[in-house]
Amino acid sequence: MTNPSILILPGDGIGPEVMAEVRKVIDWYGAKRDLAFDVSEDLVGGAAYDKHGVPLADETMAKAQEVDAVLLGAVGGPKYDTLDFSVKPERGLLRLRKEMDLFANLRPAQCFDALADFSSLKKDVVAGLDIMIVRELTSGVYFGEPRGIFEEGNERVGINTQRYTESEIERAARAAFELAMKRNKKLCSMEKANVMESGILWREVVTRVGQDYPEVELSHMYADNGAMQLVRAPKQFDVIVTDNLFGDILSDCAAMLTGSLGMLPSASLGAPMANGRPKAMYEPVHGSAPDIAGQGKANPIACILSFAMALRYSFDQGDEATRLENAIEKVLADGVRTADLMGPEGGTPVSTTEMGDKIIEAL
Amino acid sequence: MTNPSILILPGDGIGPEVMAEVRKVIDWYGAKRDLAFDVSEDLVGGAAYDKHGVPLADETMAKAQEVDAVLLGAVGGPKYDTLDFSVKPERGLLRLRKEMDLFANLRPAQCFDALADFSSLKKDVVAGLDIMIVRELTSGVYFGEPRGIFEEGNERVGINTQRYTESEIERAARAAFELAMKRNKKLCSMEKANVMESGILWREVVTRVGQDYPEVELSHMYADNGAMQLVRAPKQFDVIVTDNLFGDILSDCAAMLTGSLGMLPSASLGAPMANGRPKAMYEPVHGSAPDIAGQGKANPIACILSFAMALRYSFDQGDEATRLENAIEKVLADGVRTADLMGPEGGTPVSTTEMGDKIIEAL
Ligand SMILES: CC(C)[C@H](C(=O)O)[C@@H](O)C(=O)O
Ligand SMILES: CC(C)[C@H](C(=O)O)[C@@H](O)C(=O)O
Repeated sequence: MTNPSILILPGDGIGPEVMAEVRKVIDWYGAKRDLAFDVSEDLVGGAAYDKHGVPLADETMAKAQEVDAVLLGAVGGPKYDTLDFSVKPERGLLRLRKEMDLFANLRPAQCFDALADFSSLKKDVVAGLDIMIVRELTSGVYFGEPRGIFEEGNERVGINTQRYTESEIERAARAAFELAMKRNKKLCSMEKANVMESGILWREVVTRVGQDYPEVELSHMYADNGAMQLVRAPKQFDVIVTDNLFGDILSDCAAMLTGSLGMLPSASLGAPMANGRPKAMYEPVHGSAPDIAGQGKANPIACILSFAMALRYSFDQGDEATRLENAIEKVLADGVRTADLMGPEGGTPVSTTEMGDKIIEAL
Repeated sequence: MTNPSILILPGDGIGPEVMAEVRKVIDWYGAKRDLAFDVSEDLVGGAAYDKHGVPLADETMAKAQEVDAVLLGAVGGPKYDTLDFSVKPERGLLRLRKEMDLFANLRPAQCFDALADFSSLKKDVVAGLDIMIVRELTSGVYFGEPRGIFEEGNERVGINTQRYTESEIERAARAAFELAMKRNKKLCSMEKANVMESGILWREVVTRVGQDYPEVELSHMYADNGAMQLVRAPKQFDVIVTDNLFGDILSDCAAMLTGSLGMLPSASLGAPMANGRPKAMYEPVHGSAPDIAGQGKANPIACILSFAMALRYSFDQGDEATRLENAIEKVLADGVRTADLMGPEGGTPVSTTEMGDKIIEAL
C-alpha cells in the first residue's frame, strides 16, 4: 500500500517558517506512529509569482488535484501589493479553492485555557469557547459573474455578483449539519434574507436540508446581528454556517474573540475522491505576517493544528489528531510561549523552531 | 419665519414607546429654549402595512421628502416575518433611504463612562471609545440590479449585485473626510479590494478624494481584518468609511463593543435641500425589540440621542445637542437605569417614561 500523499505549499512571509515545524511533526508521525506520508513541496502566492509570473503554476494546480491533502502556509506581502489583480498572491489561493471545489471551509474558534487572558473580551465571555464556523468557499461574490470595473456614461462602475445555486447552498449546509451532529447539535445559519434574495434562497435551502437532521436545533440570524452576538455572547453558538463573504468577515471576528490568531487552524473540504478521502486543503487562519517574517518569531501552532485537522478529516486519524492537540495544550500549560503569546503573566519565551521542538517533545 | 419641520415615524415594537420620550424632549426645547418644531407623525413598517398594505404609503414618502428631518423609531416584528419580501417592514425603511438619497449613514460607537462595564470587552479596551462609522447607504448590494431568485436548469439561483459608481463612492468618501476633519483627522476605509473589483474602485476613489484632504491620515484595510481589529483594539480607529453591506455588519460589530445598544443613535444624511439643510433621517441603531414592546422596559436614550444628532446635523444647534448629551451623561452618572442598563453594581431602576422624565429634569 502506498503512503497517503501531502502537498506542502508554504507560500510567503512566515509561511515557510511555520511549515518547517509542521514537517517535523509529520516526520515524527512517520517515525514514531507508523504513519508515513509522501510529502512534496511547491510554490504558491508571491513565491510562485517570483518564479513563474503567476501565483499558482498549472503544474502545481495539477499536483494539488492528485494528492490526498494540501497544506498551505500563507500568501501575500507588501512586495506584491501593486501587482495586477489577476496575478496577486491571493489569486493562487482562490484558484486552489475553486478548482479543487473546496466548498466547506471549517474554521474553529476555540479559546485555549492557558490563553484566555489574551482575548480583548472578558474572560468569562470567552473561557471555554468552542465554535465551528462553516463557510461556503467556492461561490458567492468571490466568484460570481459579471464582475469588473466598467465604463458607464462618463464614469466607471465597480461590479461584483453574489450568486448561489440551490445545490451550492445545499452541500455547504449538509457539511454543517453533519458537523453539528458530531458536536452539540446546534446550528445557526447567517445571511441577510431581509435585504438580499440570495439570502432568502439560502435560508430556504438550509431549512429544507435541516429536515434530514431533525435532531439538530436549527436557527437563523441576520449576519449583522450575528456579528453582534459573536461579540456579545459567543458561547451561545455551536456550529455556524454562512456564505463566502459573510464567512470571511464573521470567521475573522470569531477568530479574534479567542485573542490568539496564531493558534487557529482551518480545513477546506470538497467532495470525496476515488479513494474515499475528501479533496482537502488545510491552512492557518493567520496571514503571511511580513513584518515578522524570517525572524524566528512566528507561532507555528496554527499551522500544526491545521495538520491535526488533516489527520482528523483526511486521514481518519481522530485519535492521533487529539494526541497532537493535547501535546500543544500541554506545551501551553507549561508556559512555553512564542512572542505573540507572551502576556503579562510571563512564560518561557521560545522561537518558532523551539516551539516546534517542544511540541515534538510533548508528543 | 416658520418653524423647522420634523416627521416622526415611530414604526413597530418599542418604536412608539421610545419616540414618546423624544417628543417630550422636543417639547422641552420648544418651551424652554425657544426652539419650536412643527412635528407631524405617520406610519412606517408593519404599522403602515397593517393600515395600508404597504410598509410605507406614498403620502408618507412625500411628506418625508418635504420635512427638514425624519425621526424613525424601529421597524419589524415576528408578526410580519412571513410577509412577501416586497412588503416586509424593512422595505419601508429602505425606500426612505433610497428615495431621500441618504447616502451617508453616520453611526457613532461610543462607550459611555458610566457603562464601560457593560461591554463584553475588557474595560481598558473600550473605555473612552469614540469611533464614527460612515456607511454608504443608498447603493451596493442593497439596491444593485439584477437581483432575485431565478430558474437555471433544474434548480434555482439567488442573485444580488454589488454595484458602485465612482460618484457614489466619492460622495460617501467626502462625507467621511469632512467628519474626519472635525474629529481626529484619521480615516480608515474598508473593503475587500483583494477579492472584489468593486473594492478596487472603492479604494481608488477614496484615495483620490483624500488628495483634497491632505491633513487627514488615510488608511485602507480589508473588511475581514477590519472586523478583527474592531474586536482586538477598537481605539485605533477614529472615522471608518465603508460600503452599505460591510457597513451594516461592521457598524453592528462596533456598536456591540460598547455593550449598550440601547444607547446608540444614527444619522442618515443626503444632499442639501433648498434651505441648505441636508435631507436627513435619524434613528436608533437598536431594532424594534418585539419581546419587550409595550412593557415600559425599553431604553429611550438611543432615540433621544438620535434627536441630538438632528439638532447637530440638521438644525445647526451643536451646543443644544451637547446640552442634551450632557443631560443624558448626568442621568447615567446618577445611576438611573432602564432594565437593559442594569448591571451587577445596581442603580435606580426606571421605566421608559421615567427615563424620559429624568432626562428632562437634567436638562
Ligand atoms: C486572502 C483572502 C483572499 C482570503 C479570503 O478573503 O477568503 C482570506 O481573507 C481568508 O479568509 O482566507
Ligand atoms: C433593518 C435592515 C434592513 C437594516 C439594514 O440592513 O440596513 C438594519 O440592519 C440597519 O443596519 O439599519
